[in-house]
Amino acid sequence: MNKNHFFSLSDTADFLKQKDNFVILTHQNPDGDTLGSGFGLAMLLDKMGKKSTVICSDEIPKKYAYFTDLAPQNADFNAETTVVAVDVADSKLLGKLEKEYASEVQLCIDHHISNIGYAKATYLDSNAAANCECIYDLAKALSLEIDKNLALALYTGISTDTGCFRFSNTTAKTHRIGADLIETGIDTAEINRIMFETKSRIRVELEKMALDAMEFHFEDKCAVITVTREMYEKTGCKDEDLEGITSISRSIEGVMVGVTLREREEGGFKISVRTYPPVDASEICKRVGGGGHIRAAGCQLGAEYSASMAKAKILEVVKAVMEENLAGTLTD
Amino acid sequence: MNKNHFFSLSDTADFLKQKDNFVILTHQNPDGDTLGSGFGLAMLLDKMGKKSTVICSDEIPKKYAYFTDLAPQNADFNAETTVVAVDVADSKLLGKLEKEYASEVQLCIDHHISNIGYAKATYLDSNAAANCECIYDLAKALSLEIDKNLALALYTGISTDTGCFRFSNTTAKTHRIGADLIETGIDTAEINRIMFETKSRIRVELEKMALDAMEFHFEDKCAVITVTREMYEKTGCKDEDLEGITSISRSIEGVMVGVTLREREEGGFKISVRTYPPVDASEICKRVGGGGHIRAAGCQLGAEYSASMAKAKILEVVKAVMEENLAGTLTD
Repeated sequence: MNKNHFFSLSDTADFLKQKDNFVILTHQNPDGDTLGSGFGLAMLLDKMGKKSTVICSDEIPKKYAYFTDLAPQNADFNAETTVVAVDVADSKLLGKLEKEYASEVQLCIDHHISNIGYAKATYLDSNAAANCECIYDLAKALSLEIDKNLALALYTGISTDTGCFRFSNTTAKTHRIGADLIETGIDTAEINRIMFETKSRIRVELEKMALDAMEFHFEDKCAVITVTREMYEKTGCKDEDLEGITSISRSIEGVMVGVTLREREEGGFKISVRTYPPVDASEICKRVGGGGHIRAAGCQLGAEYSASMAKAKILEVVKAVMEENLAGTLTD
Repeated sequence: MNKNHFFSLSDTADFLKQKDNFVILTHQNPDGDTLGSGFGLAMLLDKMGKKSTVICSDEIPKKYAYFTDLAPQNADFNAETTVVAVDVADSKLLGKLEKEYASEVQLCIDHHISNIGYAKATYLDSNAAANCECIYDLAKALSLEIDKNLALALYTGISTDTGCFRFSNTTAKTHRIGADLIETGIDTAEINRIMFETKSRIRVELEKMALDAMEFHFEDKCAVITVTREMYEKTGCKDEDLEGITSISRSIEGVMVGVTLREREEGGFKISVRTYPPVDASEICKRVGGGGHIRAAGCQLGAEYSASMAKAKILEVVKAVMEENLAGTLTD
């Protein structure tokens, strides 16, 4: 990424002041942070007397529907627009909007260190746990009031990206911003209930089935959950109903590697691997043609694999990497 | 409670300065907040050159075992001791220590508005989400450094009592204290993993059984989970393994009242009721001789009740209160 393209916070504030009509792009499969950033920025622009509309490749999940009422969606698409992307690390993540907008992004506001620098200018704060922290900083830099609606959007983004202040990305600053947002009077318990505590009955059904079929291997240090097409069909679950299911296997006491296999509609399996130190999840997935982070990674196996073949394949690799990382021999 | 017995924060600090040899009492079935407060206070006293020992009616659960190494346990039980209770709202909650200590408590540091005033003096901050906030304030009042060990104890108490900043008791101050504690360099993600993300295999087994037996009533607005002695025996679970199980039924989409019945060893049932607005959990439990808060309350039914009788009894009351609160008639 070209250093010249980096904006400071005040450059970013100045840039927004100079323009009047904005299109705000969020990433595909939108989450609380990209939407909180998008609608949060739209609220800032509205306070500045500017026009904007937030757009996304995919439909906004029901639980974030309340965002869309928080800011007027009033960009004038017949006039010249300024395109800003929020929480979008790579133009590929624009999904269906990529073709039209990839080369049009004038400003990207992001917190991913992996940002590829596709925008004409980028404001990047990789210390921010959530991109909504950047929007908060921008509000402060622009001396704009953080009202209840803005706080609602920003809190949602911060809470969802940090697992409600639970993950290791949470910093002292994250908490201080949380404090400021709570002081506006928003009902954080209700937001968190919607974001974290509600499961559909069909999800509970599927979880029961998956837990029933859970297997333990390698001195019980590895747990494997397989979600078959039959389970999807019996319960009526779709992939979007399975958010967070990959963390279940690793959450069992003593488990260092949690593996979740989800049978794809077209056959074959999507495999998620979650680990605890010192086991390297990305190394496991790399050996099956996938990749990811050290504690969370993924890979796929094609339709030529049956469930038992897919399980055997991934377990063979899990065992090898565990033995390397733990420097010892494991029994099954 | 006699107003004369209330201590201000500086009274409390002065009192601790005047004494030298302390016994610190925590409540029975100890949780992160009473233990964090107890060992946190012990660390403060150690920094002041005083001696203290933390005691509890029950064994300290494994996941809090690291607390015991944080502060020297060096009270001189052969000399005169000053007895301080932390996070203990009622002398009954001292459990097996009640008989020996109930009338001996010279200072109680608590955050429960329901504190009955059994101690000679009480420092009460009912706005504190966790009692560890009071210990934090005390450290500040005493100008004592908050080091990593102290931060570890206080963060654990705050995080466990707020569901990691998720519940409605969380305030802006809670977050600001969280920020200060993180700045000491503690690994909050690891603490939260131990506190929230690890389940024993026997717990998972029992949860599966309980979910299999879950019932829905009153247009699916009420979910009932019954944990029978048979489930305890089959899985090997004890009551301490069931922490948080009461929140499962309410977490199902559309459920407003979650009821959990746990069969007692001596027969009869311990019943927990969790609700969402506008249903009043304390009103439900009051009608069966129990009590509690508006969203979380409890009651008991004696050994004369079979599982089906107990369920019928509580459901009758749930229906009546729901119909009052929802101002409508429900069908089963």
